[in-house]
Amino acid sequence: MKKEKPAIGLDVGGTNLKCGILTPGGRLLACRKRKTEVQKGRDGVLANICSLIRETLAEKKLTLKSVAGIGLGTPGYVVEGVIHGAPNMPGWHGTPIIDIMEREFGVPFFASNDVTLAALAEYRYGQKAAVNNMVLYAIGTGIGGGLIINGSVYEGSFGMAGELGHQIVENNGRRCGCGIRGCVEAYSSTVGLIALARERLPGSSSLILQMASGDLDKVTPKIIYDAAKRGDKPALEINDIACRYLATAIGGMINILSPDLVVLGGGVMQAGEIILNKVREYLPSFALPDLLARCRLDFAKLGEDAGVVGCGAFVFEKTGKLGKRGES
Amino acid sequence: MKKEKPAIGLDVGGTNLKCGILTPGGRLLACRKRKTEVQKGRDGVLANICSLIRETLAEKKLTLKSVAGIGLGTPGYVVEGVIHGAPNMPGWHGTPIIDIMEREFGVPFFASNDVTLAALAEYRYGQKAAVNNMVLYAIGTGIGGGLIINGSVYEGSFGMAGELGHQIVENNGRRCGCGIRGCVEAYSSTVGLIALARERLPGSSSLILQMASGDLDKVTPKIIYDAAKRGDKPALEINDIACRYLATAIGGMINILSPDLVVLGGGVMQAGEIILNKVREYLPSFALPDLLARCRLDFAKLGEDAGVVGCGAFVFEKTGKLGKRGES
Repeated sequence: MKKEKPAIGLDVGGTNLKCGILTPGGRLLACRKRKTEVQKGRDGVLANICSLIRETLAEKKLTLKSVAGIGLGTPGYVVEGVIHGAPNMPGWHGTPIIDIMEREFGVPFFASNDVTLAALAEYRYGQKAAVNNMVLYAIGTGIGGGLIINGSVYEGSFGMAGELGHQIVENNGRRCGCGIRGCVEAYSSTVGLIALARERLPGSSSLILQMASGDLDKVTPKIIYDAAKRGDKPALEINDIACRYLATAIGGMINILSPDLVVLGGGVMQAGEIILNKVREYLPSFALPDLLARCRLDFAKLGEDAGVVGCGAFVFEKTGKLGKRGES
Repeated sequence: MKKEKPAIGLDVGGTNLKCGILTPGGRLLACRKRKTEVQKGRDGVLANICSLIRETLAEKKLTLKSVAGIGLGTPGYVVEGVIHGAPNMPGWHGTPIIDIMEREFGVPFFASNDVTLAALAEYRYGQKAAVNNMVLYAIGTGIGGGLIINGSVYEGSFGMAGELGHQIVENNGRRCGCGIRGCVEAYSSTVGLIALARERLPGSSSLILQMASGDLDKVTPKIIYDAAKRGDKPALEINDIACRYLATAIGGMINILSPDLVVLGGGVMQAGEIILNKVREYLPSFALPDLLARCRLDFAKLGEDAGVVGCGAFVFEKTGKLGKRGES
C-alpha cells in the first residue's frame, strides 16, 4: 500500500508563526515556531514563512515532492486567494498569498481564516463523535468562529463566514471593536470580561482587585476566574453576565444552523467548567428545545496545536485525501 | 433526447393543500388546491393528500411511472422521515410520512419543512442571479426561514435548521410564541406588528385606528402599512421598530453565514419597498461591512407558488436531476 503523503501546515499569528508536518491520521511529525515579526512588513513576514517551511522540511529530511501540499491559516479572510483584513498585521491585507506561495514552492497551496481551520482540526482530530455539522467558538482577545457544514469547512460565498463574535446580544449595547453596538465579543471575550470588571469593580472589595494588586489595569480573565473559583461574588457575577450573553449568541446560532456539536475553545476557556456549565444553564432561554436537545456543547480538545493541525488538514480536505466524516 | 420526467410537489398547509406537477425547468404543468381539513385528523389529511395527487395526475393524463417522484413540504420538521412539530396540525406530529407515502405510491418520496422548500424554489427558479448561498425569510404570521448552502438545501443535522424567527434581538424582550424572550418573530411578524400597534395606538389619533374602525382587534399589517404609506406617524414608527429588529436578526445571520443573497418573502412583505428600504438602512448597524457589501437583499419573486414549486424541485435535487447552480 502506498503511504499517504503528509501535509505542511503553517499557522500565521500576529506574534508567532508555527509550521507543522501533519500525517493524514492527524499526527504532527514536526512542529517549529518562530516570531512573525510583523514590523518587518509583508515581505519580511513572507520571508520568515518561507524559511520556516524549509527548516521544518529539513528537520524531517523531507523534500517538497514528498508532501501533499501546504495549508496556511491567517487572521482576517482569504478572498479569491488574497488576504483581506487582518488589522493586527500591517501590510498583510492585499497579499496575493496563494499566487506567491505556489510560485515559491510549486506544490498545491491552500489558505483560509485561522479559526476556520482550527475548527477543521477539532472536527477531524479533536472531537471523537462523528457529526455532520460543528461550530467552534474561539474565545480569546476577541471571539472568532469556524463552521463545519455537511462535513466540510464552510467559508461562505467569499471566504468570510463564521464571524460568531458579532452576534448582537444587547440592543444598543456596548460598542464592539468592530464598531457595532452590543456584539457578544464586547461582553464575553477577554476584552469584554475586562470591560465588565472595569464597570463593576471600582470601590468594591472583590478578590479580583486584591489579586491584581489593586490595579484595574492588571485584571485578566485568569484573575477573574481564579477569584470566581474562590467564591468571589463580583467575579461570579461577571461570569454570569458573560455566559448569559455567550448563551444568547450560541442559542441564536443553534436556531439557525442546528448543528450536532458546538465546541468552545480559546484562551478564556482555560477557566473550564465554570463557563461551560453556566452557558449550559442559560442556553434553554435562547435555543429552541428541539434543536438544543440534539446539540452537544463541549470543550475544544486540541489546545494550542489546533491552528497548525487545521492548516495541514485543509490540504487533505482540498485534495480529497480525507473521506467525509460523520456521514451516516 | 429523452425528455426529463416531471415531479409532483405537494405543499401542506394548515388550511390548504396544493399539488403541482413541475418540469425540471421550473414550469408548473398543473396546480390543484383543496382544503387540508385538519379537523379530520392524520388519516383524513393523508387521504386528502393522496386523492389530490391522483386527481392532479389524472388531470394531465399522467401515471406514477411518468413522474420522477413526489416532494412534500410541511409545517414543522421532517426528522428521519417522521413529521415533528407542526403545532397547528393536530395529529400530524409523529406521522412516518415517507414510509406511508412510498408504500402508497411506489415512487421516490422526499419531505422537508415548507419554508426550506420555498427557499429552494426561490433559489432555483425565482432569483435570476447565480449564487452559492441564499437565505429566505418568510415573514407572515410568524417568521420562518430556509437556507441554501453551497447550492443545496441545508436542513441541519436533524431536519430542523433555519429557525430564523428565533434570533434574540431584545435582551429580556417580549415573549415569543416559542417561549423565548425577545425573538425577532415577536416584533417583526404579523403577530409582532399587531403587538406593536396594540402597545402604541390606544389614545392616539393614528390613521391605523380609523382604518380599523376604531377597533384594535381589527388591525392588520395591511392596515398598518396602508397608513404608513399615507404618512401616518405611528404607523411609520411601528415600521421603523419592526425593521430595525429585522435588520438586527438579518445582520447577525449575515455575520455567521456570509451569504450572497438574502430574500424576504411572506405575506407581510406585500408592503414592499417600505420594509426593504428600512431594513437596508439599518443593516450597517448590525452586519460587518465586508460581509454586508457582498450580500444582496431582495424580495422573493415566486409568490404563492413558491411552496409547491419547491416541493417539486426537492425531488429533482434529491434525485440529482438538477446540476449545482451558481458554481463558478
